[in-house]
Amino acid sequence: MTFIDTLNAAWRKNNSLLCVGLDPDPAKFPAHLQGKPDAIFEFCRNIVDATSDLVCCFKPQIAYFAANHAEDQLQALIAHVHATYPGVPVILDAKRGDIGSTAEQYAIEAFERYQADALTVNPYMGKDSVDPYLAYPDKGVILLCRTSNPGGSDLQFLDVGGKKLYEHVADIIARDWNTTGQCGLVVGATFPGEIARVREIVGDMPLLVPGIGAQGGDVEATLNAGKAAGGTGLIINNSRAILYAGKGEDFADASRLAAQASRDLINRYRN
Amino acid sequence: MTFIDTLNAAWRKNNSLLCVGLDPDPAKFPAHLQGKPDAIFEFCRNIVDATSDLVCCFKPQIAYFAANHAEDQLQALIAHVHATYPGVPVILDAKRGDIGSTAEQYAIEAFERYQADALTVNPYMGKDSVDPYLAYPDKGVILLCRTSNPGGSDLQFLDVGGKKLYEHVADIIARDWNTTGQCGLVVGATFPGEIARVREIVGDMPLLVPGIGAQGGDVEATLNAGKAAGGTGLIINNSRAILYAGKGEDFADASRLAAQASRDLINRYRN
Repeated sequence: MTFIDTLNAAWRKNNSLLCVGLDPDPAKFPAHLQGKPDAIFEFCRNIVDATSDLVCCFKPQIAYFAANHAEDQLQALIAHVHATYPGVPVILDAKRGDIGSTAEQYAIEAFERYQADALTVNPYMGKDSVDPYLAYPDKGVILLCRTSNPGGSDLQFLDVGGKKLYEHVADIIARDWNTTGQCGLVVGATFPGEIARVREIVGDMPLLVPGIGAQGGDVEATLNAGKAAGGTGLIINNSRAILYAGKGEDFADASRLAAQASRDLINRYRN
Repeated sequence: MTFIDTLNAAWRKNNSLLCVGLDPDPAKFPAHLQGKPDAIFEFCRNIVDATSDLVCCFKPQIAYFAANHAEDQLQALIAHVHATYPGVPVILDAKRGDIGSTAEQYAIEAFERYQADALTVNPYMGKDSVDPYLAYPDKGVILLCRTSNPGGSDLQFLDVGGKKLYEHVADIIARDWNTTGQCGLVVGATFPGEIARVREIVGDMPLLVPGIGAQGGDVEATLNAGKAAGGTGLIINNSRAILYAGKGEDFADASRLAAQASRDLINRYRN
């Protein structure tokens, strides 16, 4: 089954647009995990086990694993998700971007070594830098379009012939890059008007939306702006508010409650 | 000593603008290394030992290590360069790019775990996505500007208010991002006129130039277009033609000859 098919099924089966972002920061782990050699795997596995029926996907952020010399734990974590929750896809958040021969190596890293179902990719180097990922027909390729960090506007907001660069990126990906239906876009939640603009350009393409705050208003505006037909089309990422909801040995219970609240808040505005 | 100071000293001491790119592809290794558990380290160490007096820096491409589960070999390789050839800086080619909190993790990966002296970074997410690397005052940050792959023009050639996007990127980095003098730019060698345009915009900022072919014309045009005062300012990368110059047990001797020829060809047009 392709990433897109698995995602579509997970949206429906778990009745959820929520993506739990796995950004494990050992300094924030509960005391009983501190200093254990496989603490990162154990922390993430507990979060996964506590939330797998509440999410449409998981999104490990590779930088947190790489900074901690924990590639093997990332590999074990993704293998655990696949073995235990086969209907829940894994997006590896790595924002890779390089020329074709190097992109082939990054594709091997993401799709063969880690067995991720989808990968985030940076579009700055153009279509041929993305083709090596698209060469894996079952995999998803989620391209940066509009990011909600303060500096996101430095380039993405430039005017290119009457539209903004991020609109142009959405347009060429929808028209020229996504011939096989494998693509999605990253669009930050800060400005709902921009999500609406991207949705208008790309039709039903999946949008990965980071930056949702704790406020219901943001969620409502994001849903109104970005949902596709059938109240799907969005992968709404929440990391820290779920990962670090609890501090004790029962931290995963607190994470489950936070994930449930997040999913339910999103669902309030889906239909 | 900062990356820029070490690079300046290496340009002069080794009388070289040549960067040997370490893109280890095990399928291309000599027969006697095939199948060895530390083949990637051994291959690269031999290349480093054979060429260290001929280069201004080394540039390992992390994708080749990651695809082969060889992070520890990358770490050992960079440690070997630093211990044995302390005057030769190491640029980790990883083209990272993410929001601040994640960029902090990538900075830990590159500068603390791998002890790289400089890192390549993608500018698409804007200045605040680059600040965490610049927070390491001794390190270099080499930003993608104009890449020479066929799709490089998809975004980089867009007109933004009367200039091309890559010119705008060069301009904002030189004016606004490089306040501490730590930045360099990646500018591909395919079109010397574009190197000249970037040099005009950024003054003496170091330019990392991949894509030099075997033809003297390209090297001459690149040097004429891109050299800064004193015949320096360029980091001219050559990977495959040097790494895979020989096929036998004496492969590193062939690599040395190829590196020497490449350095000498570059030097013919420096002054």
